[in-house]
Amino acid sequence: MDVDIGNALASVASPGVSRASLERLDEQVAAAHGRIERGMADGVHGYEALNLPGRTDPDEIRAAVAPVADCDALVTVGIGGSALGAATLVDALEGDGTETVFLDNVDPDWVTGHLEALPLESTAINVVSRSGTTAETLANFLVVREAFESAGVDWTERTIVTTGESGPLRDLADRHDLPSLRVPDGVPGRYSALSAVGLVAAAACNLDLEAILEGAAAERETLTGSLFECPAYAYGATSYALDQRGAGVNAMMPYAESLETYAEWFAQLWAESLGKDDLGQTPVRALGATDQHSQLQLYRAGPSDKLVTFVTPREREDRPIPSTEVEDLAYLGDATLGELLEAEFEATEASLAAAGQPNVRIELERVDAHELGGLLYGMEAACVLAGELYGVNTFEQPAVEWAKKATRGLLGGGDFEEADAVAEKTELRIER
Amino acid sequence: MDVDIGNALASVASPGVSRASLERLDEQVAAAHGRIERGMADGVHGYEALNLPGRTDPDEIRAAVAPVADCDALVTVGIGGSALGAATLVDALEGDGTETVFLDNVDPDWVTGHLEALPLESTAINVVSRSGTTAETLANFLVVREAFESAGVDWTERTIVTTGESGPLRDLADRHDLPSLRVPDGVPGRYSALSAVGLVAAAACNLDLEAILEGAAAERETLTGSLFECPAYAYGATSYALDQRGAGVNAMMPYAESLETYAEWFAQLWAESLGKDDLGQTPVRALGATDQHSQLQLYRAGPSDKLVTFVTPREREDRPIPSTEVEDLAYLGDATLGELLEAEFEATEASLAAAGQPNVRIELERVDAHELGGLLYGMEAACVLAGELYGVNTFEQPAVEWAKKATRGLLGGGDFEEADAVAEKTELRIER
Repeated sequence: MDVDIGNALASVASPGVSRASLERLDEQVAAAHGRIERGMADGVHGYEALNLPGRTDPDEIRAAVAPVADCDALVTVGIGGSALGAATLVDALEGDGTETVFLDNVDPDWVTGHLEALPLESTAINVVSRSGTTAETLANFLVVREAFESAGVDWTERTIVTTGESGPLRDLADRHDLPSLRVPDGVPGRYSALSAVGLVAAAACNLDLEAILEGAAAERETLTGSLFECPAYAYGATSYALDQRGAGVNAMMPYAESLETYAEWFAQLWAESLGKDDLGQTPVRALGATDQHSQLQLYRAGPSDKLVTFVTPREREDRPIPSTEVEDLAYLGDATLGELLEAEFEATEASLAAAGQPNVRIELERVDAHELGGLLYGMEAACVLAGELYGVNTFEQPAVEWAKKATRGLLGGGDFEEADAVAEKTELRIER
Repeated sequence: MDVDIGNALASVASPGVSRASLERLDEQVAAAHGRIERGMADGVHGYEALNLPGRTDPDEIRAAVAPVADCDALVTVGIGGSALGAATLVDALEGDGTETVFLDNVDPDWVTGHLEALPLESTAINVVSRSGTTAETLANFLVVREAFESAGVDWTERTIVTTGESGPLRDLADRHDLPSLRVPDGVPGRYSALSAVGLVAAAACNLDLEAILEGAAAERETLTGSLFECPAYAYGATSYALDQRGAGVNAMMPYAESLETYAEWFAQLWAESLGKDDLGQTPVRALGATDQHSQLQLYRAGPSDKLVTFVTPREREDRPIPSTEVEDLAYLGDATLGELLEAEFEATEASLAAAGQPNVRIELERVDAHELGGLLYGMEAACVLAGELYGVNTFEQPAVEWAKKATRGLLGGGDFEEADAVAEKTELRIER
């Protein structure tokens, strides 16, 4: 990816960051890069994720998927980092037509709807949980298994397991001799897109795993000690600097429908990695050009507390707009849909700059496997760098534990004081 | 809808609002309600939207849809307010199986993908634009028409037009004698879900239009001069009061997959209505339980600048979780998916309250046509009330015009100084 931070400079935007500030910040970037490099070299928890491009074995993943190669659909049972990386890849890239469903919620009606619509006799199951105990994932897996059994389909012949070294899912894989893959040690879920966690679904769709990993590896080569030389660090440092100056919101706005899920992936990466110790930008998922008719009014004229991050490909498949006899619309007939979309992007970017609202442009050559691998890796590196600058524990997410304990307690899975707190809710109800 | 603002009180959360403050604010609510009532009575632009439940004629909409009653699919060509209300309704409610596609973006690859996947010979077209000149909508409509012609399908036999009193789409409807409906005067796009704009797609799916409108009308009956008596005003006033105290982000987090599009609709309503004059909360679309594994870390432990708004139905279709031999997971087998989801919701709500992060609960009886009509109307009224309290022009969106002019200029549709600004972009590129 290439990054253009021109519209984040103090000469353009407020909040904005001056070149002199960026140069001072670059000394912190150099020090942070040193810590990141050492973390990678020593395989330290979290930093290890940045080693994935050289460690992930596409052949091993394809071998696990081979037994279900003739299936028409793949249902992935996983949530959060166990689903979003895989969904990002299969939603962005053109696969072989294999239908992909991600059961990343326990809404009963919705789960039932998916199970009724899937051709179970030609559907494979991809269950993903590092611990093997994630409540939503295990509940859904039990439901999916039963649905297959009820349909007379042997789930043990079509289930792939991706989990940690031990736990209930590992035991299950061993017991039924299921193809199984490892969630790599030292890699938090939100950083696992470039491991088996993200790539099983990609392999089932016959996506080019080598190209994804090569794109990531090429991005890794750009990691140097200066934000002025490394696109990923330029993005991470600029986001951090803008947040320091008041841009507490980071709206991720790709100008490509295929990258809509990527924006969700980014939102998890950014929120769980940096949202702690009272710090962290709030990621907002947006989509160009659609959200020009929804969010742009706020971004341009609301509080000056936002960074808008555009992601745009330089090339795309295009389609002409047919001409029209309506004089006022004749200009459309001389253009293509792609030219219209590109003009909308440039106009929106300039519209924010003209209003002094900071924004950053991330350019891809096109949306393909190589570029997407680079984008995911680049954003992970940007986030790790930002975490170093904030001084937070980038790779932990302790604040989600409270609700997990309360949930378990509420369902009778043990005594937890968190569950008692639920009953003590303060109410002020206004009813119809 | 019922609203519980207990977890937004200063005794629970920070930022939070004290009861004494709410009582003082209620005097402003009474005055604002007076202005809203007069605006409704006089049919003033914007306020007129709150009259829709009594003005919209379901029979007229069904009559327009009748000629395409045997179609298997409906493609709606519209963007922003011309798409989101309709999408919210058909995504939330169980229809007759008619496939619905919303072409609300001009991404060429994505448009082509939809057109190739649709059964054109049994697909109806629903084109929606008040002005009849919206660039994205007209470009897509030209593309769709051509695709039908190329497939040998007469689009004039299966196109429904919803537009203003005059303009290119009105002319087209007259010329080809197409069934046509009016975007009602005085109703901004983002407030038009309960008019033909939102209901054509609903009618094509055989949804219960009367129940939607009756639900909205019942909510209208609750509009009184006190936030302590009116759920919609309680929500609007509390959101405003929390924003005043630092909650500049409003995360809308329904605990129902069927309401995912509703959160998008809300984001447009809130952003375009209130995001002006340097004011306005940033709406964030979230989804329970999924985003507990993505955003909850930030909401609980990040900056105290967020209101989290939950929407949860009291009843839902349910599905048991099969039992498991794994001891650590046995508690799941005693529950249903719905009980798990409900426990996750209560746990998340309590988890935020325990961390002092303000949140509001909106309860629906269930997700059905009546309740959804009430929810949409209630949120519109909440937003109008909030706009009165902020003192902004709730029903305008002037900040989106700049980019529209620049886009047109860039495509050779006239001379606009905004287009010139695009070429003067400040660059600071960091490339691979």
